[in-house]
Amino acid sequence: MRAAVMRRKQLFVEEIPEPRVAPGLVLAEVVACGICGSDLHALQHTDQMIAAAKASGSPGAFDPDQGVVMGHEFCARVIEPGPGVTNVQPGDTVVSIPVMITPEGMTTVGYSNVYNGGYAERLLLMGALCIKVPDGCDPRHAALTEPMAVGAHAVARSGIKPGDAALVLGCGPVGLATIAALRLAGIEMIVAADFSTKRRELARTMGAHEAVDPRQEPAIEAWRRIDGTRPLVIYEAVGVRGMIDQAMRDAPPQSRILVVGVCMETDEIWPMMGIGKELNIQFVLGYTPQEFADTLAAIAEGRLDVAPLITGEVGIAGVPQAFRDLADPEQHAKILVEPALG
Amino acid sequence: MRAAVMRRKQLFVEEIPEPRVAPGLVLAEVVACGICGSDLHALQHTDQMIAAAKASGSPGAFDPDQGVVMGHEFCARVIEPGPGVTNVQPGDTVVSIPVMITPEGMTTVGYSNVYNGGYAERLLLMGALCIKVPDGCDPRHAALTEPMAVGAHAVARSGIKPGDAALVLGCGPVGLATIAALRLAGIEMIVAADFSTKRRELARTMGAHEAVDPRQEPAIEAWRRIDGTRPLVIYEAVGVRGMIDQAMRDAPPQSRILVVGVCMETDEIWPMMGIGKELNIQFVLGYTPQEFADTLAAIAEGRLDVAPLITGEVGIAGVPQAFRDLADPEQHAKILVEPALG
Repeated sequence: MRAAVMRRKQLFVEEIPEPRVAPGLVLAEVVACGICGSDLHALQHTDQMIAAAKASGSPGAFDPDQGVVMGHEFCARVIEPGPGVTNVQPGDTVVSIPVMITPEGMTTVGYSNVYNGGYAERLLLMGALCIKVPDGCDPRHAALTEPMAVGAHAVARSGIKPGDAALVLGCGPVGLATIAALRLAGIEMIVAADFSTKRRELARTMGAHEAVDPRQEPAIEAWRRIDGTRPLVIYEAVGVRGMIDQAMRDAPPQSRILVVGVCMETDEIWPMMGIGKELNIQFVLGYTPQEFADTLAAIAEGRLDVAPLITGEVGIAGVPQAFRDLADPEQHAKILVEPALG
Repeated sequence: MRAAVMRRKQLFVEEIPEPRVAPGLVLAEVVACGICGSDLHALQHTDQMIAAAKASGSPGAFDPDQGVVMGHEFCARVIEPGPGVTNVQPGDTVVSIPVMITPEGMTTVGYSNVYNGGYAERLLLMGALCIKVPDGCDPRHAALTEPMAVGAHAVARSGIKPGDAALVLGCGPVGLATIAALRLAGIEMIVAADFSTKRRELARTMGAHEAVDPRQEPAIEAWRRIDGTRPLVIYEAVGVRGMIDQAMRDAPPQSRILVVGVCMETDEIWPMMGIGKELNIQFVLGYTPQEFADTLAAIAEGRLDVAPLITGEVGIAGVPQAFRDLADPEQHAKILVEPALG
C-alpha cells in the first residue's frame, strides 16, 4: 500500500507492506488524518524527540533510521475486525486514541517502526480503543477529535473555573484547540495572541474574545486593558525557547501556567520570578480516554465546530508538500491527509 | 544602638539611629534572630535579589548603597507599644511576620532601608502582626517560627497527603524545616539528600526516615530502594542551578515538584521532560499568617522541637563571622544573633 514514510529526517512517498490483522486488532482504511505540529517537530528534531521520549518513559521512541509512517489524528473505516474484536463491524467509521498496547509495552501509532500511522492507505488499531463515529458526523471532522482533545485536556488539567480568565499564547492547532475547549468550559474571558492575522481570525472564530498581535500589544497588556481583575490562567501554546520565561514574567502572582506547546530544546527560566509570585507550572501531554470520547461527542453533536480549522486536504502524494506548506501560518492551520485523494 | 549593617555587599558593625515608635507600631528589644540563607544570598547576590523583587512585585526591594539591617527571623520583647496598639504590653515576648505595611506600600522588615531587622538591639514591628510567645516557650526557639513556617507552607502548598512519599533535596534550614513539617503532617516516608554528614544527621533528627549522600546514592534511587510505589512529592531545597532540571529528570510521571530553594540565577530546564511526564512545578514563597501562628503553637507545645537546629549563638559583633561560618554545613545549620551576648 502507499504511505508517506519518514526516514532520516526526510519524507518519502513509497509502497510499504500491507498491515495484517491479528487478534484484538482491527484493520481499517484511513479516511482522513490530520498533520500534527508534533509530526513537524519529529521531522525537524527527531533526535531530541526520541531522547525525550526515552528519558521520560513515554511511548514515543522509535528508530529514526528505519522508516516511520506518522499520522496519529486519524478517522478510519473498519475493513476487518480481528479475532476477538466484537465492538466494531466492517464499514464502521471509527476514531481511536493512537496507542498500541503489546506484550512488549505501549507504543504510539504514528511514532512506531512497527505500527504505521494515518499517512497511509490502511492501518491497524486496537479494537478495544476504537470508538464509533456517530452517523451524520463528517469523518473529516471526527479526525480532529485527537488534536481537539489535547485542548480539552489542557483546560481540564488547569482547573480553570467559570469566572476565571484565560490567556492563550500562540494560536497554532494546540492553541486553537485550547481556545475551543475554554469556550466549551464556559470561560467568559479568553485573550489570545499570535503573530499571524489568519491565526488571530481563527482564534476569534473558535471562541477567543480578543486576539492580539504581541508585536503591537503584549497579550498580558490586552488582558489588563479588557479585564485585569479575574484570576488568570496562562496557556503557553507556542513551544519555542523563552516562552515559559515570558509567561512567568507576565503572570500575575499566584497564577497558573499550562505548558501545552512543546519546546524540543532546553529552555531558560528565572526561578526567582516563579518564587516571588508563587507561580504554578503544569506541563501537559495528551488526554484521557474520557476526554477523547467527550471531544468526539462534542464534535458530532455540533457543540464544537472544527470545520474552520481545516485549511487544506491532500492525498498521500501531497504529504511532503503539506509539511512545507504548514510552515506558513497565514495559509494553514490543519491539513488533512485523505488517501482517497491520491 | 548597635547593628550589623549590610552596605555594598559587606557587613559592618555600627551605631545606627534608634528606631522611634509611631501609631500602630511597637518598639521591641531583639532577644534572638536567626540568620537566614536568604540573607547570605542577599549579601552575595544583592543585585539579582533586588531585580527579582522588583520584577515580581514582591516587597523586598531596597537601595543597596544605603545601609540595610537584615534579620527577619526574630523573637523580641516589647518595650513600648505605640498609640493604638492594644494587643501587646511592655515585657511581652512576641514574634511577627516580618512585614511592615505603610501608606507607601508593603515592605519586608530586614530588607528595607527604613525598617531595620533583627541584627540590631531594637526594632519596630506592626502591633497588629505581633503574636505573643506562650509562657514557658524559649524565645530562642520561638525565633525559629519564621523559618519553620516556610517548611509548613511548602508542605501545605504541595497538597501532600498521608500515604504519599516525600523526597527532600537539600538539608539546609529550608530543607530541614520542610522535613519537620512533613513529619508533623503525618508523612510516613521522607527521604532526604545532602552532601553533608551533619546535615543528614539533622535531617534524621527532624524526621527523615532516610537521608543519603547523593554522591553515593541519588535520592530518587534511595526512594526506589525503600519505597518506590507511593505517589511522590519532590521538595527542591538546594536552590542552585540545575536542581530543578535534576528534579524533573528524577520525578516519576504525574508528580509534583515544590521549588522551595531559591536559585538567584537563571536556570535551564528541559520542557520535554516536564511534558512527557506531565509534571507540576509549584514555586513557593513565605507562608500565610495562619501557618506562621500554627508553627509558633507547634514549637510552644513541644510538637516541633527546633533545638537541634540551633548550632551557634553570637552577639551583634559576631554577625560578620557568623555569615562566614554558615558556609560550612558540617558546623552549622542555624546561628542565632542575640544582642544581649554583645
